[in-house]
Parts: sequence; C-alpha cells; structure tokens
Amino acid sequence: MTHSVPDVLESLLGPGRVIADPAVLEARRHDYWMVSHVRDLAGTPAPRPAAVVRPTSVAEVQKIVRWAGEAGVALLPFGLGSGVVGGTIASADAVVLDMGAMGAVRSIDPENLLASFDAGMNGQAAEDAVAARGLTIGHWPQSVAISTVGGWIATRASGQFSTAYGNIEDIVHSIEAVLPNGDLVVLGKGPRASAGPDLRHLMLGSEGTMGVITGGTFSLRRAAEARALTCFEAADMRAGFALQREIVQRGWRPPVMRQYDERESRRMDARLTKCAILMVHEGPAALVAAETAAVAALAAEMGVAAAPADVVEHWLGHRNNVPGWDAILSRNIVADTVEVSADWTRIAAVYDAAVASLKEVEGCMAASAHSSHVYRSGLNLYFTFAVQTAGPAVMEATYMECWRRIMQATADNGGSLSHHHGIGRVRRGWLETELGPEATALLRRVKAAVDPAGIMNPGALIPDA
Amino acid sequence: MTHSVPDVLESLLGPGRVIADPAVLEARRHDYWMVSHVRDLAGTPAPRPAAVVRPTSVAEVQKIVRWAGEAGVALLPFGLGSGVVGGTIASADAVVLDMGAMGAVRSIDPENLLASFDAGMNGQAAEDAVAARGLTIGHWPQSVAISTVGGWIATRASGQFSTAYGNIEDIVHSIEAVLPNGDLVVLGKGPRASAGPDLRHLMLGSEGTMGVITGGTFSLRRAAEARALTCFEAADMRAGFALQREIVQRGWRPPVMRQYDERESRRMDARLTKCAILMVHEGPAALVAAETAAVAALAAEMGVAAAPADVVEHWLGHRNNVPGWDAILSRNIVADTVEVSADWTRIAAVYDAAVASLKEVEGCMAASAHSSHVYRSGLNLYFTFAVQTAGPAVMEATYMECWRRIMQATADNGGSLSHHHGIGRVRRGWLETELGPEATALLRRVKAAVDPAGIMNPGALIPDA
Repeated sequence: MTHSVPDVLESLLGPGRVIADPAVLEARRHDYWMVSHVRDLAGTPAPRPAAVVRPTSVAEVQKIVRWAGEAGVALLPFGLGSGVVGGTIASADAVVLDMGAMGAVRSIDPENLLASFDAGMNGQAAEDAVAARGLTIGHWPQSVAISTVGGWIATRASGQFSTAYGNIEDIVHSIEAVLPNGDLVVLGKGPRASAGPDLRHLMLGSEGTMGVITGGTFSLRRAAEARALTCFEAADMRAGFALQREIVQRGWRPPVMRQYDERESRRMDARLTKCAILMVHEGPAALVAAETAAVAALAAEMGVAAAPADVVEHWLGHRNNVPGWDAILSRNIVADTVEVSADWTRIAAVYDAAVASLKEVEGCMAASAHSSHVYRSGLNLYFTFAVQTAGPAVMEATYMECWRRIMQATADNGGSLSHHHGIGRVRRGWLETELGPEATALLRRVKAAVDPAGIMNPGALIPDA
Repeated sequence: MTHSVPDVLESLLGPGRVIADPAVLEARRHDYWMVSHVRDLAGTPAPRPAAVVRPTSVAEVQKIVRWAGEAGVALLPFGLGSGVVGGTIASADAVVLDMGAMGAVRSIDPENLLASFDAGMNGQAAEDAVAARGLTIGHWPQSVAISTVGGWIATRASGQFSTAYGNIEDIVHSIEAVLPNGDLVVLGKGPRASAGPDLRHLMLGSEGTMGVITGGTFSLRRAAEARALTCFEAADMRAGFALQREIVQRGWRPPVMRQYDERESRRMDARLTKCAILMVHEGPAALVAAETAAVAALAAEMGVAAAPADVVEHWLGHRNNVPGWDAILSRNIVADTVEVSADWTRIAAVYDAAVASLKEVEGCMAASAHSSHVYRSGLNLYFTFAVQTAGPAVMEATYMECWRRIMQATADNGGSLSHHHGIGRVRRGWLETELGPEATALLRRVKAAVDPAGIMNPGALIPDA
C-alpha cells in the first residue's frame, strides 16, 4: 500500500504541520506573477501542490528536505507569495514549504546593530520590532508588509531607501539555511571576512533553488536623527538623470532618489508637468542640512526647478499602495512593472527604446517609467505597462510580448535585465542573455553541485541547458 | 619521446611566453608568506615550478588552462607575489601563470565612473591612471604598489580607506575570468542586478582556486573635494572602541579610522602615551566640515582627548613602508601581522585574549594591535607579533604557535578569523572553524563543480575533507 504525500509528511512531522485546508492548497499554487492569475482566468490554472507543509523549527525543515531528497519530491519554499516574476508555481507532485509558522524575532542587539529573525517573519513586523528599540533595518521594498525577511534574501531584494542604505546584500549579516542535503549552515560571521568565496551569495538571489533559507541576521542602523524632503522638476528625463548623477558622483547620498517621466509625474500630482525628482535625505542633522543645501544649489546651477516638497510627503504616505490584479484582469487588461538597470550614459537610450517599443503593442494604454535606485555608475528604471486585450485567450501572449520588448530594448542598449524583482519564470529565458552562455553554464554546474537531485524549486530561475 | 612542460607550453603558445630564466623560476616559488622564507633558511625550500608562463592575452590564458586541464597539471596564478598567507607555493610539477605581461589599462569612463584593467596591472599604476582623470579607485591596500588589481579580487582585499569606500567587493563592477574548463566569463553587468546568485563572489576571495582572473572593472569615485585629518587619544582600547562605534553608528563615515594600542601609539609618535585614534575625513567640503565638527564634539563629550593632527599626516606619508623579512629573519626573529574581525561587544575581549596569549610565547618581543576597518556592527583588529627564536630549526613552529594563539583567542571570543589577508595555507586548517563543517563541505562541492580536475592552485584555501 502506498501512502499519500500528506500522510507521509504527517507521519514524519507529527500532527499540525501538514495543511489539508483546500483554500490553503489553492492559495499556495503560485506567487503574485500576473501570468499565473491570467492562467486561472484562461482555464489553464496551476495545479494544487501535493501538500503544503508548515514547519515550526529548523529541525523540521531539515527532516522535510532530507525526505524530499530521498523521495525525489520537488520542494517549493514559500514566504508570503508577493513575488511578481513567477518564482513559485506548483506542480501536482510538489510540496510547498510554507515558512509562515517560523516568524519569530530571535534577537535584537542594539550595541552591535544586529537583529536575527526566522525566515518566515513578516518584513514590516521585523522592522516594527527593531523600530521599537530606536533602530531600523533600512530595507523598504514596496512589499515590506506582504513579504518575509527570508524572501528578501532569496530574491536579492531592493528597498526604497537603497541609495544610501544599500540593497539586501549590503544589509544582511548572516544567513541560516538548510541545504538540499539537509545540512544546516550559517553563512557569514563577524562584520567582514576574507575566508574564501562569500557563500552568502549562493543564497542571495537563489529564489529557492539552492536550499531553504530559515533565518537571517541583518546589520541595522539607528533611526536617523533628521529627515528632509526635497522635490525638483527637470525639463526631461536626460536633464533629471544628469542632476542625479551629479549629486551622487559628488559624494552625496540621499537614501531615496526617484525620477518620474512626464506621464508618471502628472499621475502623481496634477501640479507636475515635467519630470519630477523626489528625494528623502536622512542622517545626522548637520549632514542633512549640508546635503539639502548642496542639492538645492546644484539643481539651480543645472537649471532644474524646485517643486513642492509635499509631493514627497504624499509619496511617503502612499508609496506601498498597489492595486490588485483582479480589478485590472476583469477588464481584460494586462499590466506589470519591469525593472532593469544601466550605466548613466545608457539609461536614457534604454528608456526611450523600451517606451517606444511598448507603445507599438496593439492596445497599449500606458508605457512609462521612473528610476528609484541610484549608484555611482548608473541607476535602475522601473517600467510600467498596461495593454487592453481582447480577452483571457490572448492575455498571456500580449503580456509576454510587452516583457520581450522591454528585455530586448534593455539588452540592445547594454543594460542589465533585472534590477531587483529577480528571474523566476518571466525572465528565465533571458538569463543567458544577461549572464552569457558560459556563466549560465557555470550557474548550472554550481546548482547541480548544491542540489544534485534537483529538488529545490525546479523550473524557476535557471534555464535548462 | 616525452617533452618537458616548458617545451610543450612553448609549442602551444609560441616564443617568448615561457620564462626559462632561473632567477624568475626561483622568485616564483612562493609569495611573501614568512614561512616560505623560513623554509628557505631552514634548508627545506619550496621547489622551483615546472615552468613559469607569462601570457599576453586572454586567449593565451584559455589555451594554457585548457592544456593544464587535459594534462592534469596544477596551475598557480601569480600577480606580484605580495600575498602574506601562503596562497602560492609551487610544487615541482606545477606551472606558475605569471600575469605580469597583462598589465594594461583597458578603458577609463569618467561619466560612468568605471575603469577596466588587465588583471596583471599594478595597483598603484591603475590608481595613477584614473587619478590623472581626477578619479580614484579608492582602494588603498598597504600593498597597493606591489600588488595587482587581479590579486585584489582574488584575495578579497581591503584598503585603508574602506570605512567609507568599502572593500574590494564593494568597488568591483565586473570580473573577467577564465574558468578551469577554459570558458571565458564576464561576471557582473550594469550597476546592480538580481539575476540569480551573484557569481562575482565565486571569484572574490577564491585565491586562484576557481579560475584565472584576467580582468577587472571597478566603480570609481571622483577625487574628494575636501580632506581633513583628525587625531585623538583615548584612555584605553575600550574607550577608543566606544568612540569609534558612536561615530559610525550615528551615521558618520570617515574613510580612514584607525585605533592603536598603547605600544603601537608610542612607536608611532613619542608624544602619544595612550591609544591613538587617527581619522581621515573626505568628501564634499560641507560634509567634511560637518563630520569633523561632529566627531570633535563627540570625542569631547566622551572624554577622549584631541591629539596632534600631524600624526595623521605622518601616517599618510609613511603608511606603506614595511620592513622586509630578511632583516628580521637574519636575527632569528619571526614576526607577522594577523587580521581578524569581531562585533563591537566582542572586540576588546579578542584583543585582550590574543595579546595575553602571545605574550606567553617564549621569546615574545612584541604583541600589539590596531584596528583599521570599521563597520556598523564591528571592526577589525590587526595584530603584530615578533618572537626571538633559537634559529631556523624552530622558527616555523614558533611562528605557527603565534598564529594558533591569535586564531584560538579570536574563535573563543566569537570573532571572524580573517579580515582581509585571506586563507592561503596559514589559515587553511582554521577555515572549518570559521565556516563550520557543513559550509566547508559546501565550499568543497562548489570547488569540485567549478574545477573538477582540481588543477587550480591545489593546496591553498580549501582544507581536504
């Protein structure tokens, strides 16, 4: 007599770990990638997984992983499902490893500015826990309230304050993970080391393919002493990029620097008619004062006009409000946001080419972009598209055509194809374009070494040879 | 008839690539690890390698690597040999891949603050090339004039200005490398990406074990508008650490922050009798003014006295003068510097334990430390020891005993065992203590996937299973 996967897991873990509720099985079929929702509408939905298991300890994760390795069962780590690139799509024989029951604060250490959390901890709850001690993680993805700290690591996430505070790889101190062979590792020790290749980077951006992240320790900051908001309006995207470049290359580092094209500027505030630039300055009061004065002087010198700072205040208050897919899909519209990056001298060409290409798509209702993460050598672009389609039968193809156009325009102009959402399935066919065939083959060899049975999130991230 | 390795390489590469000069073969036997010099004195010298080959192009490196893989010959990449941990020691059948003929500037791009170099480029020459354009790499290892840019990447190096400008992993934009199978990869694209695990970190800190780094592109800075020097004297190491912690955790970031114990302070300047703290502040003039005022106020508030700033001026002018081993070894003295790191709350205990333990070594002439790289969550310590021995026969054992004591004291107190010199051979036996057995096994699996024939720098970095 063969036993069902839920029965086997129940006998392995004891009662209460295997979720039988059909609503949970239904909800854990996929993440928030629009295509999975389109497929539900089109009558080709992802199947329910064989089981959803919710471990309560690292030891239970190890048991599950070892069992999956022996049984050859696909394991799909699942945080809060806010991923938007198809990183998680169940198959009927896969087990979804729901990390939701591992959501505790492990420690907060104000002297060393360190905090440790279970991987399943809600991001906003983690931030709130350290904020109560006068500290901040400083990582503010738009999904902060609907994502987990483990998900941040797995997706190599970026936050809205990244220009000064860094992306997740700059904030993470150590990563606890269960490898596909069941081994528990803690990667990262001390404030910095040269002890061989930094193995934290096997997990950062791994999207569930290299093991199960079970905990994370972050290097915090004290809450900023002062904050100031400034807003400017550039004549066009190029003029705005030039100002942003000059600010950063002169050595200033406002945590938030965002630049919107005309369409997005108008949508944000009717008073704005050109390209809005929003900045949040934080730090010691004297530094904030020096930075805001320098930025204002530079903008004036470069002919970029000041704009009302209440625009930034409004953005701060509403920045994480995102409409759900349902309202859009019910009108047969496909839409998404797509983030890429490029050097300063290439970014305007990427913008122009991608927006122009999107506008050629039949039914295109919107094609626009803003930048939101700035570096010494360049910055990102965050495209938005919306296309009216004839209905569910053509929605996926139309959606993928929009993506193809943005990827192609970015690649043609020398940009990098994913700034922070990750690869998942939507970009999987483009990973080789990004890395080159030799480095893609290298990634496959590393994956095979770490996960020889191929149980960890098959089908995501890494293209087949 | 069998052909010698030099003959085979000569037929593969053509004339002028294989170095027959016995002086070169002698000089390429090892890096600057003291133990290799001790062994020369003790009559157990490392052998000359089978050949020294000096490629002039990436294509030649690929030819050499492919040949070595087929022939099963060990390949030892060699920059300028300034490594101090035994990363390179030849065996009689190994081929040393001297990168010295690949030393060109490939491009300097002031708009995007990017510069690309051949891996064999001298560090100071690379810095000079960008300085001529008003730019800086911002990476100032003590070895800057005697190391290569490829060596910086291979060893995961730190520079003296790291507290603001970061370590090499924060400065490197992309890495060009020839993998052990001969594939050429360029790892890193655009200012930032989430495109799977960041494969640059397979090469950063790889110490020649993962392939041959052939080029590097760095994200530069403009030369700072202003610089200020400040010096303080704390009553003891703990008081100094407390001040440094407060400066950094309040959000200030002087590029150089160094703190010397009493012994090293006195050696540096006879006017200093306690623990000197040296800082270099750089950036926009208004930022430097705000930072120096804030630091001075904080020091006064915390009871840390001001000291003459000319101490910092003197350090800047003499910071890379290091005595050679010969003068020391000829007096039967062993000496070295050993860098570790720890959290703020652990660093004083690491200091106390390591210095106390070193002083117990028979013949100990000096045991001291300074810190030189500061992070939000902690900082490094850079120990110096010198021990008078009875002669060459006992020098290696005495030297290794000093290392053992520093490693043990650091591990016992929760520190990380290598801040920036790397692992090589001197720390190879400690890598498992640092990473844990499971992560060490993971590193071995990754190494085997990247270099299945084990041709790349065998014996360095990765301990045997």
